[in-house]
Amino acid sequence: RIDGTRLWDSLMEMARIGATPAGGCNRQALTDEDREGRDLFVRWCREAGCEIRVDRMGNIFARRPGLESDAPPVITGSHLDTQPTGGKFDGVYGVLAGLEVIRTLEQHGVQTRAPLEVVVWTNEEGARFSPAMIGSGVWAGEFSLEYGHGREDKSGRTIGAELERIGYRGEVPAEPFPIAAAFEAHIEQGPILEKEEQVIGVVTGVQGIRWYDVTFHGTPCHAGPTPMEDRRDPVQALSRLCERLYGEVKAYSEEARMTCGDLRAEPGSRNTVPEKVVLALDLRHPEPEGLEHLHRALQRVAEEVQEATGSTIEIREEWHSPPVAFDPQCIDAVNSAVENLGYSHRKMVSGAGHDSVYVSRVAPVSMIFVPCAGGLSHNEAESAEPGHLEKGCNVLLQAMLDRAGI
Amino acid sequence: RIDGTRLWDSLMEMARIGATPAGGCNRQALTDEDREGRDLFVRWCREAGCEIRVDRMGNIFARRPGLESDAPPVITGSHLDTQPTGGKFDGVYGVLAGLEVIRTLEQHGVQTRAPLEVVVWTNEEGARFSPAMIGSGVWAGEFSLEYGHGREDKSGRTIGAELERIGYRGEVPAEPFPIAAAFEAHIEQGPILEKEEQVIGVVTGVQGIRWYDVTFHGTPCHAGPTPMEDRRDPVQALSRLCERLYGEVKAYSEEARMTCGDLRAEPGSRNTVPEKVVLALDLRHPEPEGLEHLHRALQRVAEEVQEATGSTIEIREEWHSPPVAFDPQCIDAVNSAVENLGYSHRKMVSGAGHDSVYVSRVAPVSMIFVPCAGGLSHNEAESAEPGHLEKGCNVLLQAMLDRAGI
Ligand SMILES: NC(=O)NCCC(=O)O
Ligand SMILES: NC(=O)NCCC(=O)O
Repeated sequence: RIDGTRLWDSLMEMARIGATPAGGCNRQALTDEDREGRDLFVRWCREAGCEIRVDRMGNIFARRPGLESDAPPVITGSHLDTQPTGGKFDGVYGVLAGLEVIRTLEQHGVQTRAPLEVVVWTNEEGARFSPAMIGSGVWAGEFSLEYGHGREDKSGRTIGAELERIGYRGEVPAEPFPIAAAFEAHIEQGPILEKEEQVIGVVTGVQGIRWYDVTFHGTPCHAGPTPMEDRRDPVQALSRLCERLYGEVKAYSEEARMTCGDLRAEPGSRNTVPEKVVLALDLRHPEPEGLEHLHRALQRVAEEVQEATGSTIEIREEWHSPPVAFDPQCIDAVNSAVENLGYSHRKMVSGAGHDSVYVSRVAPVSMIFVPCAGGLSHNEAESAEPGHLEKGCNVLLQAMLDRAGI
Repeated sequence: RIDGTRLWDSLMEMARIGATPAGGCNRQALTDEDREGRDLFVRWCREAGCEIRVDRMGNIFARRPGLESDAPPVITGSHLDTQPTGGKFDGVYGVLAGLEVIRTLEQHGVQTRAPLEVVVWTNEEGARFSPAMIGSGVWAGEFSLEYGHGREDKSGRTIGAELERIGYRGEVPAEPFPIAAAFEAHIEQGPILEKEEQVIGVVTGVQGIRWYDVTFHGTPCHAGPTPMEDRRDPVQALSRLCERLYGEVKAYSEEARMTCGDLRAEPGSRNTVPEKVVLALDLRHPEPEGLEHLHRALQRVAEEVQEATGSTIEIREEWHSPPVAFDPQCIDAVNSAVENLGYSHRKMVSGAGHDSVYVSRVAPVSMIFVPCAGGLSHNEAESAEPGHLEKGCNVLLQAMLDRAGI
């Protein structure tokens, strides 16, 4: 069994880095805070006897050797970066649960047959740099290294330059290696486990995600003398598109999701109709057909609104992460661990994207969810119970030992 | 008669300061470009024999003495600041038409009984600092000097500090003095004169304007796992409010205006429902009852949307400039000048706010409009015909001479 108090204390110590007044964390990818968090993780891993490798995308691999040093490792991990108004658990829990597994084995002098690795993936959140999960995505071969290094934040700084700046642009190629099994522990970030009073979610896959930059082009003109019918107003087009699309998404299926996380008007002067408005749009559905339906609804509504308002609507797809099914054997390993431990549980599909999505392209993967209060995540008030976090970590330990062998 | 070529050349020389690649001007209030424009104006006025005063709000008064040095002056002027994507004529025309009147009198050795003054008012556009017309507003007593100096741009810089920085925080108190009459020449910024093929608009007043910051408060949560019905999504509230209010404004009256010039989402992360969205809203109507109707429609729609979406909607009124009627004698002076000169004309109410709104609180005022191409303003493509600008300036000359006496 792992040490729940040690796990909790480490979570709270990490949460001091980038702590916000409202009790959350702002430790966005490749900022000084992210560097501090990475440094702390690396120190803890070295103290627990691990060797550290950093790859060209800044992904950190902490390895605990196995009895068979050439055997493919069993890996676990997640991310240390947060949303700008993020919480203390999203990502961090998966990283520190991995560390706690290793600390537990060290403490009890347990040697595994296969090596174990705890991984910190770069820029999982997709908040500072789009898209999400880009560290694991480059590593797994979904994106090229050039693409990864070239991604820019809102102020034009690139991932490559920021990795360099914080000293985490490593030498190891960012590419997959043979892996026996991969697990990722995470808070659910949704309400299901809490509502159903289950402690563990055995995650069978991840729903599909499509990201868009939707640009509404208008004609700047004066707010006063210009008659309403002479205007090409991008905000009229934006509001009509959103109002209709929200309606269609909700009507289509309970499982469908639509989020408008960011909005920007240019030039942004109160008495001038904007030249353009850019909307950052996120659509999700667990089924490929469902996601395709939402994608087509967006196209259709945009055409209708363009027709009706005269504003030109440009849709650029920024990212497409299709639904993913995890590996049956890894799912079984998690399921058996939960049943042995006697925790209440259910199978579920993740609503959030995770590094496991890209890892699953090159290795057998599954995930372990624990509840979070009110299902709230991407919020400074994000919270999880120490007892649940401990149980999730026990499941992780058992599943990893199952695949690594003792 | 004024010299149309000299006027045009001066307009084109001023337009080089802050010129944009698309052929417009970005010479926002109290930037280095604004300073350069002011310096050029001051030099030109001194060369034309004027004395310069700068008041504490950075308003510049260029005085040409009259035969009766103590007589209240006849003043004219407008502003040199532009929108971020502004044109070459909005404001500048009124300033340089005033200078052209003085140059013409100098050239022909004409002495007026009352002194003449050309004024450059600070931050008329309201684009960099809200509200609009704040230089003339403080001068006329609508706002206190502290309020004026304390207004901040989006990066937190204040008018007071920026006046200091560009060397235009003058010593003269920003307060009214006895004025015989005030005129302001301006492009119409709307389509009426062009559509009706009239050259001069005799402006009888200015419609009412109300500015609001509308804040939609939501609860940040994760774009994936959070069910749509559990969300408090400020973008749902924003889009529904805009969609409905546009409908109501258009249905109410052809004269009503609604503009959403700026939008901002916080924290602005694509996979997080925003914590809040702030909308910069501009409502206008020529009649006080009409403006009040729009104001009440906003409150009512906001309440309905708040009820329906669960998002809290906060409405902060940023500015209220009620409809203004200009002085009958000044209107007559403009009207007689146009008739004497034989130019086609019509009476009209201004759709845009102008410094004359605040000047009219303490002095008899009217305005002279000339057409602009397609009625387009607050746009880099803003354009006006040299012949129209010349005719408007001739009207200004005659009206000023009428009130100042020769
Ligand atoms: N787990 C998590 O918050 N991932 C961010 C990527 C996403 O938007 O789902
Ligand atoms: N003339 C002009 O563009 N004024 C700006 C103030 C307004 O919004 O009407």
